[in-house]
Formats: sequence, structure tokens, C-alpha cells
Amino acid sequence: MSDIIFENNLIKVEIEPSQIPWLKIFTQEPIKEFSMCDKHLKQMIWEATDIIEKQMLQYFQCDKINIASFGNYMPHVHFHIMSRFKNDNYFPEPMWGEQQRDNNLVLPPLEPFYNAVALNLRSL
Amino acid sequence: MSDIIFENNLIKVEIEPSQIPWLKIFTQEPIKEFSMCDKHLKQMIWEATDIIEKQMLQYFQCDKINIASFGNYMPHVHFHIMSRFKNDNYFPEPMWGEQQRDNNLVLPPLEPFYNAVALNLRSL
Repeated sequence: MSDIIFENNLIKVEIEPSQIPWLKIFTQEPIKEFSMCDKHLKQMIWEATDIIEKQMLQYFQCDKINIASFGNYMPHVHFHIMSRFKNDNYFPEPMWGEQQRDNNLVLPPLEPFYNAVALNLRSL
Repeated sequence: MSDIIFENNLIKVEIEPSQIPWLKIFTQEPIKEFSMCDKHLKQMIWEATDIIEKQMLQYFQCDKINIASFGNYMPHVHFHIMSRFKNDNYFPEPMWGEQQRDNNLVLPPLEPFYNAVALNLRSL
């Protein structure tokens, strides 16, 4: 499976390889900051965030959703959407924090999740 | 000055004490996840994020905006909006990452920034 699970003319959604379910929404155009996106593109990003978050909660029954947009290394608007679990490596720290424990997560297969997200994103 | 620089019936905006300009948007109601907020509240959060981000870019001429919503310790929807600078303690790491250097940031006074944000948020 490609790292890109969905794209349209404004955004693309990529898989971040990780122990946890983690997707990234990128703008197709290389825009530096969220506030520099036009109204339609902002709306698209938030609706995609909402769709991904809901699918993560439903499919993985995760303990918390984490959202982040940094871009300090790569100044191109992208949002991270992460499914967090109380027994994942870093919980309750952010995924950029200090590791708390070894990985003992058992997750359902990821492919049906990616397919459901892609299907829902097509309604945007 | 109170830690809360703005509030209305849906959100409040608080100062996070830090070497960098850092504000947090909280929902007034204790909602766990962003996707559980109703449409109007989601819209309010994103518009407040946009207003804060634009004011940070304009006032501090910062190098990058960072946005994050974790809530692993406190599962109550809140978004962090941070002004990042190439010479801040953690850049290019997130503020939750590993410290890179000692603080040598020189910032303009914060109060006019808070006042301008509060004024702009009143238009929401």
C-alpha cells in the first residue's frame, strides 16, 4: 500500500509509520502556515481532521486523539492526527516526548481503517 | 494580568507561561475530543486559532507557528498555539521535545500582543 491513502486537488493524507495509528494531512501546495491557506483549504483540512479523528475513535477505541502541526523542519502545512492508547510507548507524553515504556500495543488490522478513512474523505 | 485574556460563552484563551509567546484555547464545556464538539464550537476554535496565529506572525515576526492538541493528562479539548523562533530553546524540535540550547530570545512586550488578540477575538 502506498503511503498516501487519499488525495484530492487540495490535500493529501499520508501514513506515518509508527506503533500507533498515525495519519498526516498535507496541503498539495507548499504553504508555510495554516493562516496563509485560503478559507476553502482551511475548511478542507478541518473536515479531514474531523473525519480521521472520528474513524480512529470508532475503529481503534483509542483513549485519546492527539493533533499537531509543527513544520519546523519542513515549513509546509501538515497536520498529524494520532490515536493514543494508555499503554502506547509514550502515553501520557506526546509522541515527541520521552518514551515511557516498551511497546505492548495489540491493534486490529490497519488496512480496513485506511480504507474507511479514504472512503469518508471522498465525500469532502 | 489574569492568565485568561479572553472568554465568551464557548471558549476561553489562556496564557501558557513560557519563554515563547504561547496561548491555549479551551472549550468552556469539558468535552473530551475535538470531533465531539458541535459544528459551531469547532468553527469558533478554528477561527480563534486563525486570529491568534495571524497576530503572532504579525507582532513577533516569528519563524514558525506550532499548533497542538493532546489532552492526555487532561482530557478536555484545548489547543496550544505557539510562536517559534530559530533561536528559541527547542527549535526545530517541538516544545515537548529535547532542549537544543539556552534561552537567548529577546521579545517585544507581550501585553500589546495579548490586547490585540483579545480585541480581534471579540469579533467572533
